Amino acid sequence: MSECIFCRIVAGTIPSKIVYADDQAVAFEDINPQAPVHVLVIPRKHVSSLGEVAEGDQALLGHLMRTCLKIAQDKGIGASGYRIVTNAGRDGGQTVFHVHLHLLGGRALSWPPG
Amino acid sequence: MSECIFCRIVAGTIPSKIVYADDQAVAFEDINPQAPVHVLVIPRKHVSSLGEVAEGDQALLGHLMRTCLKIAQDKGIGASGYRIVTNAGRDGGQTVFHVHLHLLGGRALSWPPG
Repeated sequence: MSECIFCRIVAGTIPSKIVYADDQAVAFEDINPQAPVHVLVIPRKHVSSLGEVAEGDQALLGHLMRTCLKIAQDKGIGASGYRIVTNAGRDGGQTVFHVHLHLLGGRALSWPPG
Repeated sequence: MSECIFCRIVAGTIPSKIVYADDQAVAFEDINPQAPVHVLVIPRKHVSSLGEVAEGDQALLGHLMRTCLKIAQDKGIGASGYRIVTNAGRDGGQTVFHVHLHLLGGRALSWPPG
C-alpha cells in the first residue's frame, strides 16, 4: 500500500469528502480549511512535486486548474471569486509530497498570499 | 492600442522588467513585490480570466505553470521552494483582467495564503 496519504485518498483507503473525480483528477475538502470553500485538487497518479511533472504532462497541470474552475462553479463561488494556490518545497510550505492545488473562496482573500 | 496594461507590457509599449518570454508566455517582475522573488507569468494572448480560458487551451495553463517552474530554477529558488498563486474575481483579489500567475519565493511563505 502506498505511504502517500493522497494516493490513499485516491484509492479510497483513507476517508475524505470527495467533491469531484474524473480519470485524471480527484478533488476533496481540505481537512483544515482556511476559507468557507477550501478544496484540494490532485492528479490521480503520484507526482511528488511540480518539478517532477513531466514535460509531456503539462496538459495535466492545465486540467487540474480547469478542475478548480469547475469546482468553483459547483460551489457557487465562480462569480464572487476565488484563489488557486500551489506550494512547492520548504519556503512554499508544501507539506504533502503529491502535487495539489488549493482552491479557496467564500470570503475575501487578503494580500500578500502568505 | 489595447487598454489592457498586460497586453501593453507584452507589446512593449509599457516598460517592465521582463525575465522570460516565449511564443506563448511572458514573465516580468511584479511592480509591487511581496517577496524577494515575485514574478508574474501571463499568456501573450489576452484572456481576461481563468473562466475565459477555452477548453482547448488547458495546455496553455499548464505551460504557464511550467514557466513558473523554469523561472523558479533561474531565480535560484527551485530547491528552497516557492508558491504559485492566481486570483479570480473580487474575493480572489484579481485587479488586472488578463490571466496571470504569481510566482513568489525567496522567503518562507505563511499559511493561510491570504
